[in-house]
Amino acid sequence: MEILIQMFFVKSYEWNFSYGIEMDFCVADLSPTAPRVNGFPCKDRANVTSKDFLFTDFRTAGNVSVTGTNAYASFATVLEYPAVNTLGISHVRLDFGIGGVVPPHTHPYASETLFVVQGSILTGFVSFDGVLYAETLQKGDIYIFPKGTLHFQINVGTGPAISFNSLNSQSPGFLVAANQLLLSNIPAAVLESSLGISNATDLNLLEASVPPNWGN
Amino acid sequence: MEILIQMFFVKSYEWNFSYGIEMDFCVADLSPTAPRVNGFPCKDRANVTSKDFLFTDFRTAGNVSVTGTNAYASFATVLEYPAVNTLGISHVRLDFGIGGVVPPHTHPYASETLFVVQGSILTGFVSFDGVLYAETLQKGDIYIFPKGTLHFQINVGTGPAISFNSLNSQSPGFLVAANQLLLSNIPAAVLESSLGISNATDLNLLEASVPPNWGN
Amino acid sequence: MEILIQMFFVKSYEWNFSYGIEMDFCVADLSPTAPRVNGFPCKDRANVTSKDFLFTDFRTAGNVSVTGTNAYASFATVLEYPAVNTLGISHVRLDFGIGGVVPPHTHPYASETLFVVQGSILTGFVSFDGVLYAETLQKGDIYIFPKGTLHFQINVGTGPAISFNSLNSQSPGFLVAANQLLLSNIPAAVLESSLGISNATDLNLLEASVPPNWGN
Amino acid sequence: MEILIQMFFVKSYEWNFSYGIEMDFCVADLSPTAPRVNGFPCKDRANVTSKDFLFTDFRTAGNVSVTGTNAYASFATVLEYPAVNTLGISHVRLDFGIGGVVPPHTHPYASETLFVVQGSILTGFVSFDGVLYAETLQKGDIYIFPKGTLHFQINVGTGPAISFNSLNSQSPGFLVAANQLLLSNIPAAVLESSLGISNATDLNLLEASVPPNWGN
Amino acid sequence: MEILIQMFFVKSYEWNFSYGIEMDFCVADLSPTAPRVNGFPCKDRANVTSKDFLFTDFRTAGNVSVTGTNAYASFATVLEYPAVNTLGISHVRLDFGIGGVVPPHTHPYASETLFVVQGSILTGFVSFDGVLYAETLQKGDIYIFPKGTLHFQINVGTGPAISFNSLNSQSPGFLVAANQLLLSNIPAAVLESSLGISNATDLNLLEASVPPNWGN
Amino acid sequence: MEILIQMFFVKSYEWNFSYGIEMDFCVADLSPTAPRVNGFPCKDRANVTSKDFLFTDFRTAGNVSVTGTNAYASFATVLEYPAVNTLGISHVRLDFGIGGVVPPHTHPYASETLFVVQGSILTGFVSFDGVLYAETLQKGDIYIFPKGTLHFQINVGTGPAISFNSLNSQSPGFLVAANQLLLSNIPAAVLESSLGISNATDLNLLEASVPPNWGN
Repeated sequence: MEILIQMFFVKSYEWNFSYGIEMDFCVADLSPTAPRVNGFPCKDRANVTSKDFLFTDFRTAGNVSVTGTNAYASFATVLEYPAVNTLGISHVRLDFGIGGVVPPHTHPYASETLFVVQGSILTGFVSFDGVLYAETLQKGDIYIFPKGTLHFQINVGTGPAISFNSLNSQSPGFLVAANQLLLSNIPAAVLESSLGISNATDLNLLEASVPPNWGN
Repeated sequence: MEILIQMFFVKSYEWNFSYGIEMDFCVADLSPTAPRVNGFPCKDRANVTSKDFLFTDFRTAGNVSVTGTNAYASFATVLEYPAVNTLGISHVRLDFGIGGVVPPHTHPYASETLFVVQGSILTGFVSFDGVLYAETLQKGDIYIFPKGTLHFQINVGTGPAISFNSLNSQSPGFLVAANQLLLSNIPAAVLESSLGISNATDLNLLEASVPPNWGN
Repeated sequence: MEILIQMFFVKSYEWNFSYGIEMDFCVADLSPTAPRVNGFPCKDRANVTSKDFLFTDFRTAGNVSVTGTNAYASFATVLEYPAVNTLGISHVRLDFGIGGVVPPHTHPYASETLFVVQGSILTGFVSFDGVLYAETLQKGDIYIFPKGTLHFQINVGTGPAISFNSLNSQSPGFLVAANQLLLSNIPAAVLESSLGISNATDLNLLEASVPPNWGN
Repeated sequence: MEILIQMFFVKSYEWNFSYGIEMDFCVADLSPTAPRVNGFPCKDRANVTSKDFLFTDFRTAGNVSVTGTNAYASFATVLEYPAVNTLGISHVRLDFGIGGVVPPHTHPYASETLFVVQGSILTGFVSFDGVLYAETLQKGDIYIFPKGTLHFQINVGTGPAISFNSLNSQSPGFLVAANQLLLSNIPAAVLESSLGISNATDLNLLEASVPPNWGN
Repeated sequence: MEILIQMFFVKSYEWNFSYGIEMDFCVADLSPTAPRVNGFPCKDRANVTSKDFLFTDFRTAGNVSVTGTNAYASFATVLEYPAVNTLGISHVRLDFGIGGVVPPHTHPYASETLFVVQGSILTGFVSFDGVLYAETLQKGDIYIFPKGTLHFQINVGTGPAISFNSLNSQSPGFLVAANQLLLSNIPAAVLESSLGISNATDLNLLEASVPPNWGN
Repeated sequence: MEILIQMFFVKSYEWNFSYGIEMDFCVADLSPTAPRVNGFPCKDRANVTSKDFLFTDFRTAGNVSVTGTNAYASFATVLEYPAVNTLGISHVRLDFGIGGVVPPHTHPYASETLFVVQGSILTGFVSFDGVLYAETLQKGDIYIFPKGTLHFQINVGTGPAISFNSLNSQSPGFLVAANQLLLSNIPAAVLESSLGISNATDLNLLEASVPPNWGN
């Protein structure tokens, strides 16, 4: 009997171990030597601690002076917060100076909500049939941007503003429309026809004016 | 030529209309006469306005005195915020009095993050193999509860606390473990065996002590 | 025995009928009185014929003179070809005059391939990290645009060109970048900051020059 | 305070009601007047009882004498057992006379396991690359047929046999290969070429010999 | 021509090989040196035999005397039956002594059915809105537990009982409610508030009484 | 300031890099030493060029004389066109001699469309309830075969025919019904019962007549 019970303890332990292993979570292994698959492999569960699930970078504000639009986006996606791997959620902290703008952009893989932590923010999105839905939000308010829709934010208050944004993907993608369109080496003939711009000089001027630090 | 272009305008309009219709969003129609399907039908797009996407209920705190654990959960799921329908995201505002507790619970359909808006909160989850991962968070911190895991919160600061939680489902489910187990009419013989309780009186006392307002 | 076998014939028929009903296909019911759910309800199976699965509109070319970019896109999505409903596939026929351009656009819900039926087409896409991948194709060649990426086409041959494109969604979405950005009533302050344009006149000129017939 | 608590009771009830409604389950409404969507609408939750989740038809054996192959398949899919709707599981009871055969077939929407309740059954499947995997099973054994693979069963014991099969779809589909191929009005020229049969008489004989009661 | 046909044979073989490879099945490679990804890598197809798909452990009963509740659960998930990997199905054999109980538990990743092989079993589940659905089953009956719902079993017959359970996940998870709640190091302050228990002694007694061998 | 901006450039680069990496695309690494997972690992992004997304094999016709049915299928699935990996789309070029036939087959993982490039093709599919839907198509026409349905093609024109087919899976599977049924070592007793063939000679003749080069 003694032996039977001991055997059972092992089996009981196996139960727990087995059903949980690589299943309820899979903290991303971001090391360059990890195998390259469509997603990230899991950090060895034996090395996972409660600190892996804690993210503290949002305690401090982003530097709005470096983007050219007086706003800054700090990310908590799988690359900054490996615990979200396979869990389908990530976050962004937006900081705005007065009049600061996050330029129109899309997230190809996620719907997003914006929650106002401080200040007054005008935000909106363009539906697939070209209708603008926009509102001015105050502290505590939420707005939603359906997956794939073009959306933007502007601080319309008299002081700085902060928002805490949530996205339902660990890796939502971040495509700034003007930067993708104008700073990605798309042939000039394509852009001139698409924008109705008739000469190269005007296109060059437009491309040069786009704040480059938002990407591409 | 005039006619051709006019025809085209119609076709162009159809393009926009058609690709957007009932697709990028589907604001829930919660009326009792709506057809009963697995989910909610869509509000007529012609009646959707930018206000549908705005949620303002979180401006005000929940009443922590009514739950028996000195904490309160306010929801922004599809039932309170119909715009999230089909978009896979929802939110909860947690308010805590001093020492306030949100009892251990699970969301069967969503992973969740907790973002501390005010105060100091001890939170954690139990993995599928029975390991507790827990940390004490301060303002600005994020913690994550993998989908289906049992998790809890307790205000360990010296004043009230507030968190803003995000879930990657419009209808995440909310199952309070003690209440599901003890207040759901599961036969006494089952509970006595499962808890190792040998008499009916002890079980009745336990069932009577559970704060009932968290569900069941 | 006679009776038993007859009963069986009924049951046998039920087998076939039941496993097939509203399952292998669900031809869309596009009538305005159909219930409004997230997608389209099914046409009554009793009224479905083999003609429902046949699409013949691509026999004829699109009119490239009406778009302002000397190209035209004809669609075979669920709205034009209801049989694709629930089947996850749709098509586009592109016609190009000499030098014709399909402006940079995205499909939020589908990857797409382009198959050259006639002529020589330069096409490419911008990856999420801003790299342009582009090639010049001849008759019989295929190129692929990953889901959500910005892509474009231009006829670089000496005569008309035709392509047959495939998308892995019955309702892929079609967002023309310049039109979504510049013709959707996004506030001028947002656009001026995002494009680095310092005055309203320049923005107005830009907005006026975009060929409007591609949407918004 | 009295009022506050009463308000809360209502809200508490709403919590429970709301998170559960049409979500954890959706018993199928099979009535002909239910809206025709891709799947089945839900029976009104107020009318659902514990009996809806109970299935008792497998208490009795199927009549193996009516199929022509001395075996019978009884189904518990969404049509016979509406509670499985949206839950992704269904079952089949197979009864075999001595030497009885369930002819080679596929389930397009489900993987399947076979659990031997009585007797000795030879079963197997053909992989996508044409390899046969087959074993003879005894009481208590399980075999698995990957989704979409062609599989069969034959009673190789000296008495009747019974199996309890499980499929991970509420509506797995059931396509008997010989019947789909030979009894579905596919043009004779196609069948003759595909089978290497050079004259119509031989094809007609083959078509006439297939036991028709397994479908088509 | 000879050469052409030989080339073709190779190509034909490639067809079969290529479409099947690592696709219709992917028997799990459970070796500790296999790469750690979210799931299990595939056993080399060249080493897969028909025996991989056969599971015979359920021929013998579990030992009900070691759990403390006079019942035992034997598993056929991906860990015991690697062939189910990627196929979305697994099984459990439940053995019950007289009065034996499987304590209330959930499977976060699967709906489950119970099929009575022997005896009389009372089983039920608690819906998300706290309603108990329960029935007493006899041999041949099926009951269903929707994904994520709390459910239990008790042998109410006069002899041993056996059930064969099916779950639509190769790795369904197994969370015993009392064990997760009371044996997982959740802080005492949280448990006392959640259970309405006012002193540490009572909580300690409760924790000590829970049969520990069901997990945590 | 100089330093800050430089830091930002790095961060800006990280943004682009990080959101794109292994996400928008994952060109398959087909090397035999790549880790064996359920699908293909990704080619190192640093080595991906625009040529990876270009497929040119369809410029030339297939050799219809080697199949025994006067038709040939050339594939552009993940094995021939690694760029489609994870993107859910693939293609087939069908070439037909006069009267050429592609035998009845299924794709377990994809719906398919056929687009006629040249000639006149009779094509159709059998629904799950055994109804044949078939039409004769001319150049420019499209027909659709729902996922999992049995379908076929025959050239009914007076010259060669070509079609360009699209499937919504990078690895759709290709199961030729007669070859799977008759050339896969399914036991003779099973086939004889299923086909109603009463002697081994007739079965052997049938098996010998099936054109073997279409698989198995």
